[in-house]
Amino acid sequence: MAGSSFGTIFRITTWGESHGPSIGVVVDGCPAGLFLSEEDIQMQLNRRRPGQSRYSTPRNEADRVHILSGIFEGRTTGTPIAMEVINETQRSKDYSKIANSYRPGHADYTFDQKYGFRDYRGGGRSSGRETIGRVAGGAVAMKLLEQLGISITAYASSIGPVTANTFCPEEIDNNPFHLPDAKAAAMAQEYVDRMMEEKESSGGVIECRIMGVPAGLGDPVFEKLDANLSKALVSIGAVKGIEIGDGFAAAHAVGSENNDSFYINEDGNTAKKTNHAGGILGGISDGDTIIVRAAVKPTPSIFRPQQTISRNKEPMELTIKGRHDPLIVPRAVVVVEAMCALTIADSLLLNMTAQMDGVLRFYNK
Amino acid sequence: MAGSSFGTIFRITTWGESHGPSIGVVVDGCPAGLFLSEEDIQMQLNRRRPGQSRYSTPRNEADRVHILSGIFEGRTTGTPIAMEVINETQRSKDYSKIANSYRPGHADYTFDQKYGFRDYRGGGRSSGRETIGRVAGGAVAMKLLEQLGISITAYASSIGPVTANTFCPEEIDNNPFHLPDAKAAAMAQEYVDRMMEEKESSGGVIECRIMGVPAGLGDPVFEKLDANLSKALVSIGAVKGIEIGDGFAAAHAVGSENNDSFYINEDGNTAKKTNHAGGILGGISDGDTIIVRAAVKPTPSIFRPQQTISRNKEPMELTIKGRHDPLIVPRAVVVVEAMCALTIADSLLLNMTAQMDGVLRFYNK
Amino acid sequence: MAGSSFGTIFRITTWGESHGPSIGVVVDGCPAGLFLSEEDIQMQLNRRRPGQSRYSTPRNEADRVHILSGIFEGRTTGTPIAMEVINETQRSKDYSKIANSYRPGHADYTFDQKYGFRDYRGGGRSSGRETIGRVAGGAVAMKLLEQLGISITAYASSIGPVTANTFCPEEIDNNPFHLPDAKAAAMAQEYVDRMMEEKESSGGVIECRIMGVPAGLGDPVFEKLDANLSKALVSIGAVKGIEIGDGFAAAHAVGSENNDSFYINEDGNTAKKTNHAGGILGGISDGDTIIVRAAVKPTPSIFRPQQTISRNKEPMELTIKGRHDPLIVPRAVVVVEAMCALTIADSLLLNMTAQMDGVLRFYNK
Amino acid sequence: MAGSSFGTIFRITTWGESHGPSIGVVVDGCPAGLFLSEEDIQMQLNRRRPGQSRYSTPRNEADRVHILSGIFEGRTTGTPIAMEVINETQRSKDYSKIANSYRPGHADYTFDQKYGFRDYRGGGRSSGRETIGRVAGGAVAMKLLEQLGISITAYASSIGPVTANTFCPEEIDNNPFHLPDAKAAAMAQEYVDRMMEEKESSGGVIECRIMGVPAGLGDPVFEKLDANLSKALVSIGAVKGIEIGDGFAAAHAVGSENNDSFYINEDGNTAKKTNHAGGILGGISDGDTIIVRAAVKPTPSIFRPQQTISRNKEPMELTIKGRHDPLIVPRAVVVVEAMCALTIADSLLLNMTAQMDGVLRFYNK
Repeated sequence: MAGSSFGTIFRITTWGESHGPSIGVVVDGCPAGLFLSEEDIQMQLNRRRPGQSRYSTPRNEADRVHILSGIFEGRTTGTPIAMEVINETQRSKDYSKIANSYRPGHADYTFDQKYGFRDYRGGGRSSGRETIGRVAGGAVAMKLLEQLGISITAYASSIGPVTANTFCPEEIDNNPFHLPDAKAAAMAQEYVDRMMEEKESSGGVIECRIMGVPAGLGDPVFEKLDANLSKALVSIGAVKGIEIGDGFAAAHAVGSENNDSFYINEDGNTAKKTNHAGGILGGISDGDTIIVRAAVKPTPSIFRPQQTISRNKEPMELTIKGRHDPLIVPRAVVVVEAMCALTIADSLLLNMTAQMDGVLRFYNK
Repeated sequence: MAGSSFGTIFRITTWGESHGPSIGVVVDGCPAGLFLSEEDIQMQLNRRRPGQSRYSTPRNEADRVHILSGIFEGRTTGTPIAMEVINETQRSKDYSKIANSYRPGHADYTFDQKYGFRDYRGGGRSSGRETIGRVAGGAVAMKLLEQLGISITAYASSIGPVTANTFCPEEIDNNPFHLPDAKAAAMAQEYVDRMMEEKESSGGVIECRIMGVPAGLGDPVFEKLDANLSKALVSIGAVKGIEIGDGFAAAHAVGSENNDSFYINEDGNTAKKTNHAGGILGGISDGDTIIVRAAVKPTPSIFRPQQTISRNKEPMELTIKGRHDPLIVPRAVVVVEAMCALTIADSLLLNMTAQMDGVLRFYNK
Repeated sequence: MAGSSFGTIFRITTWGESHGPSIGVVVDGCPAGLFLSEEDIQMQLNRRRPGQSRYSTPRNEADRVHILSGIFEGRTTGTPIAMEVINETQRSKDYSKIANSYRPGHADYTFDQKYGFRDYRGGGRSSGRETIGRVAGGAVAMKLLEQLGISITAYASSIGPVTANTFCPEEIDNNPFHLPDAKAAAMAQEYVDRMMEEKESSGGVIECRIMGVPAGLGDPVFEKLDANLSKALVSIGAVKGIEIGDGFAAAHAVGSENNDSFYINEDGNTAKKTNHAGGILGGISDGDTIIVRAAVKPTPSIFRPQQTISRNKEPMELTIKGRHDPLIVPRAVVVVEAMCALTIADSLLLNMTAQMDGVLRFYNK
Repeated sequence: MAGSSFGTIFRITTWGESHGPSIGVVVDGCPAGLFLSEEDIQMQLNRRRPGQSRYSTPRNEADRVHILSGIFEGRTTGTPIAMEVINETQRSKDYSKIANSYRPGHADYTFDQKYGFRDYRGGGRSSGRETIGRVAGGAVAMKLLEQLGISITAYASSIGPVTANTFCPEEIDNNPFHLPDAKAAAMAQEYVDRMMEEKESSGGVIECRIMGVPAGLGDPVFEKLDANLSKALVSIGAVKGIEIGDGFAAAHAVGSENNDSFYINEDGNTAKKTNHAGGILGGISDGDTIIVRAAVKPTPSIFRPQQTISRNKEPMELTIKGRHDPLIVPRAVVVVEAMCALTIADSLLLNMTAQMDGVLRFYNK
């Protein structure tokens, strides 16, 4: 089944394995006339690149993007934009152990069950490198959203047991965890350092705020905006939960608390006094900031010995070697932004056809 | 945008408003030869029907389903199965208030923003009655899954602040909340009674266990099984959060806790010692029980006066009349099961094409 | 596989068998605010209704349509429009012969091969009655196109060996064949009368002109407008060939003949001196009249004895009883219009997202 | 709109322009375990490569394919197969004339209308080089079909006014036109030579025979096999008409001629005495040879002066320079095969879910 595409009108198709010759994405359906350069893409890829702090694997790759199609004289042409990043680390290392065992928390076993065998080198298709295609595609979507005054900011709202208590946007890129709270960042550092000493790994929560989205995006009853954002985020490896607005806290609240009252703000516009809904009502954006959260599990690759089985169904002890990020959250922040951008861009384009008035205006009738 | 379809191979398309002549669904892509009767569908619809406890609106409708196509001599023919439920309550009541105001927590405002106007009678398309189509379609999926030994059980894991502490399957249908814990049910009753007295409403969490799913379902990287389950559940009105397996708790755990060790069980099969992953690894089912949870917000219709605005952008106080469920959870349990059944059925069919061996065997080559 | 839907944004899903309780369609993705009444739909259904001339089966059904959803106060709401026509002729007649034999030229054998069995009553899903859903859905599309000044006219360009030599629009509904040429109509009448005497049936060609389509519709490279029109028309039972513009004649022409020169017309607009291309260049509409043709095979139900086999693989002679149209063309004319309307409507909506300028203008940026 | 993908389960996404850095395709949904090498792809690409006879442009490119993902140890892994061909001819030549004029018969005008501007170098996305992605993707499909005993053979059935009268398979690759008739080939040579002298171009008809297809492929009522084959072929630039089986001749035939009688053949299998239907009944394959034909218009690039207009709406005379194929047919033969292979492969996979029996057998229930 063709599972590597995302989106209806603005659609990406990603391809590539960790240790294949290259990895990439095709962006199809981007409107023509958007100014777009390799630098726009590279900027986002640099944010997910490994080796930027001691909390990320030093697989040192430039991850330089090449645009292969779809751009002419600096602008998108409306035809597919193909982008490629060469995998520099293709060195043949000894994968015999990984080839024959099922790492706990990884997709080794399920890939074998589904496909009969798997490209085990570096995790193959289920490697985190797969997100390069998402980030490159998301960078195009973000460029489009910028033109419409929409901005997307993701950050860690918690790292393991440490939770951000303040939201200080300028702090986000000030610490390796992308926490918007300097104090929490210091505590997180202590915590993660301890985890690393203990050969453990840590999870966390990523929150994302999407500002400037016009009311009206999302298509009841199955293509609701929150439904598609949820699919987008849960499709990222390691994400095990999603919240929109108050999320699980809403389940414990009472109606009068949870309902957001409408009022007319100082600009004469409809607004809500609170935003428990996270900017989405009935699956349609309400014009307020969209707030989503993704729960990220701890990196499954830990350096402690683990009990597992081999492909031949024999029990074995496995000790993972090499270098692995002790936590996925910091590098996943940009992936969350990319997936949100892709979802919003598609929804924006789809929404243009919602009303006859809009259609008639478009065609000047 | 065509947003009323769900699924790729096994696909439903729902239609209908709360106060239109009827409401229904078309199930397309169901394999031919499945025994299916109106009674199979009715059984599920009866579970979502209102008026079954004092915690649900006494809109007293039989909600009797009619199968209009796709069945011949008791079996599905492979052609679309259309099903319809007549809306008995179409009485013209005075909707002028609802027509001109935006109820907090409802989709009135966003529907107007998206479509320019809306069918305001009883919530129109955003009414809970829309789930009739989902439940009827889900009943077909469930019938298919039964043949494969797959069973789905949803229940309330919490009602407002009350959380189930035990899992007693036979309790689930013993209390109006579908809590699997008699003690919690008693507490929930007390809590919800109080909420009703206070003209408040309550939220809760629905948990769903899917047993018997073979390993291999789900299609990386965007059509992952958990991504599609998340979309399916968040597409249900009032759902604001999703968890797979440990969900948000995983974000706070460390790697060695969260990883599920593989072992060979007494039957000689691959199994996991724990199931923090909730039966899905890398977006693919691992053969273990699939566990998902959905956070349901409190019913937005409360009987307290609320501040809001009119369609003409004038502030107003709104007091909702009529009868509304004080909590959505009990009647949403069957909807959660339906959406899970639809997702799993589609994924099962899609998975048949994953390996050449399977294709060759199918065509006897 | 879900094969009963057509379109991406403006999408129909049809359902129903010849002898089931009813037959219908769900139209999803129609923009909100389009004025639409049952009369708009009925008008088109009346055109395909049987019993209007001696060349069509006198199965005398009113085929009255009921709109079940998606309309409020006379306008589309943006939610799915479900429509239903009750099958009045469900009389149990003796189908044992048809049940056990494979009629030549019909889908009996292939349905059995695909699905294992079939609803044999009146052809089941492969009956011409299936087109009721198409025509009802197409009527909605046509209403939308009208608003944009687009009109669609289909007619017979040949009946068996008789070909129209003139194009007289007012003649089209003046003869039972929908030929735009009175002289040809007289000859066709003679021909078809003879065919009926000889217990034979006749084929023909339907031509369709679509006027007022703006340049720009169609999405290279696979969703080209002509590719989708071809799929739309070949999906009609009995259609065995398609031409766009000059069609097969182009294969025999030379370049200088076939190329249409551009010029600036008296209104200062770009135009073509000829229209060999049939209004589509590179899969995109060029603003000129779109011309397509569909070859329709003779009705497979003839009253002569035919050699065939039974379901049990035994040779047998079959003589079809009952009443059947001696030619399909006249009643298929409205179906061709419907499928063209559906294709153009979807393409019109999709085209709105082709340029950033259009997107920015739509969102007032 | 995302128009560069084809197929539902077995899906290709093509990308690339004539003069961009490279051109390629992503094949998603190919079952795992299929043996596949670059040589399998190259073999097909070599067949479409220019410069193989004096009737094709001598743009001398090796068109060497690189597989970038989806293959491990010689077999497909079930993940996307990305393939790339470097464009060697990217020389900056003077395109100012082509940039500012609308070539008759080309997509220059419609691309400008749709997207606002275009990559005019060598035709950009509407260049014949776009078919590289189709042929590479089709080569994967063909490899899959081979395993199931399905073979596809396309050839010219006419070149301009010259029609093949015999079908001699071994002749097909014996002449530069791929005519299966040596005598016709000699006449075609004479004809095309004359056309070249006269600075003209020629069209033709490509016929394709698909053998070994099991009965049952195709999904009523919109995803019929013939409907999808038609879409596939008309999506090829220059195709203006399609026939299935007898095609337009059926429109002139009578029922008793056109109906194919069923009988039991010497092997005890169901067969048809004739094959006017071209192997498809009711949109479903009947087990017989599938026969389709595509009408190909003459190459629009001719060396005679032509009247046209500039982008600025000024009349101008245009004389096309450079080298262009005097006819498209010979190099399109392999593209027709590729599109047929893609359609059949997708349909084969989709058909696996048609019956409960098949589903239960697959899952061993």
